[in-house]
Amino acid sequence: MHTAGVAHEPQPVVAVTRATMRHVSIVPVDGLPEIVAGDDLAGLIAAFSATTPQDVVVISQKVVSKAEGAVVRLDDITPSRRARRLARKFEKDARAVEVVLRQSTEVLRAERGVLITRTTHGFVCANSGVDASNTATGELVLLPEDPDASARRLRSRLPGRPAVVIADSFGRAWRQGQCDIAIGIAGLMPIDDWCGRTDRNDHVLRATAVSIADQAAAAADLVRSKDSGHPAVIVRGLDQYVTAADGPGAVSLIRPAGQDMFR
Amino acid sequence: MHTAGVAHEPQPVVAVTRATMRHVSIVPVDGLPEIVAGDDLAGLIAAFSATTPQDVVVISQKVVSKAEGAVVRLDDITPSRRARRLARKFEKDARAVEVVLRQSTEVLRAERGVLITRTTHGFVCANSGVDASNTATGELVLLPEDPDASARRLRSRLPGRPAVVIADSFGRAWRQGQCDIAIGIAGLMPIDDWCGRTDRNDHVLRATAVSIADQAAAAADLVRSKDSGHPAVIVRGLDQYVTAADGPGAVSLIRPAGQDMFR
Repeated sequence: MHTAGVAHEPQPVVAVTRATMRHVSIVPVDGLPEIVAGDDLAGLIAAFSATTPQDVVVISQKVVSKAEGAVVRLDDITPSRRARRLARKFEKDARAVEVVLRQSTEVLRAERGVLITRTTHGFVCANSGVDASNTATGELVLLPEDPDASARRLRSRLPGRPAVVIADSFGRAWRQGQCDIAIGIAGLMPIDDWCGRTDRNDHVLRATAVSIADQAAAAADLVRSKDSGHPAVIVRGLDQYVTAADGPGAVSLIRPAGQDMFR
Repeated sequence: MHTAGVAHEPQPVVAVTRATMRHVSIVPVDGLPEIVAGDDLAGLIAAFSATTPQDVVVISQKVVSKAEGAVVRLDDITPSRRARRLARKFEKDARAVEVVLRQSTEVLRAERGVLITRTTHGFVCANSGVDASNTATGELVLLPEDPDASARRLRSRLPGRPAVVIADSFGRAWRQGQCDIAIGIAGLMPIDDWCGRTDRNDHVLRATAVSIADQAAAAADLVRSKDSGHPAVIVRGLDQYVTAADGPGAVSLIRPAGQDMFR
């Protein structure tokens, strides 16, 4: 048995190596205007921040989608019979349901007014990630068509070529509340895989694969509130996970269907 | 359509209010020794850090369990028939399977050597959170019996009475890699609920409830590696979510069974 101040005297801080002293800081990019279709998002972020090659710039999906014009007008949508049936059941706008269905390859659950779908990208989430908040009336914002490509494009245009994560808020099975996760990644190791490495007692670590990109997305969300107009956040101190290559992207974070226990 | 440098000139930084400039920093507590049963964990953390009332101290479940003696020796376990059957099927130690079953109220999936269970606390995770890594051979570390109570106890004993989050790495349905989540909370708002509030276009925000505690747990994990001996991490800058009362705890993050779509 150890007790404080007896078995374990505090060690002088000077003895601690730099490597163990790393810390992470998370800073929002202040001053960005409301983003609309056609905006030069990388140029705007560059104008309001100073990014370095070691930074991770976490950008909300919503503004990436808006800048890319991944927006549909409900008036332009003709709902299918299936969409009309689901909409009646859930008392929703059949055109909105139609948009959700078009953005999906599979409906996993349709309960209590929520459609849990697999998106065309492979993400499992509510309503295919289609969103009506913080947008004009009668418009819906879709997920970017290829969020990894969006992240690569943004990275290539940001000063210093920092890592880029495109983040969206996803709910979780069995748990209340949403966390931000990475739906697009360029230049950040998505997973730090400890499988096969040994722990401090020389046990082989199993099933320890840390989702760095999802945790970075979650961390970034802590400095913004949902109406704060902080769609871009810089996470500093993740140098060891930033890569010169754009890497495998967020698509590598999708669990293959064959390993999926919860269809 | 906006373009950088035309429609949106950078605003002078002095015009930005302090409230919008908030940033979060994440610092590991360096120097903590290996924690064993009976250790005064709060005393040790206090000896190696300087905590203030606005801080959030995120502590790994593993060291809380170890300090509390929530450890079982495989040699002391007699497996049930059910445990022996599952162990044969998965080529596992029947005693370890027995421990997992005892820590659960329900087995949701038993596939490919993984038991997805609902723990006695209500968490859904692999193997009831029972863990053999970073522990002595022949021993298994359980989740704390009441992680919210553990968090409250640690909070009351840490200098300045900071918020405390007890974190564990959980896998996620449909996604690769684990993220740290909050299994015990004292003094931190578990969820920042935006439901009913309006967005910037006066739309009522729906289904926007941000899991602050889970995101804080995930953020803290970014500064440690799985063998780094950094079981305690201080997250600073979350002042607006830190509460004088201990609050509803991590139990409030468990989705009620009636709302659970993925049994």
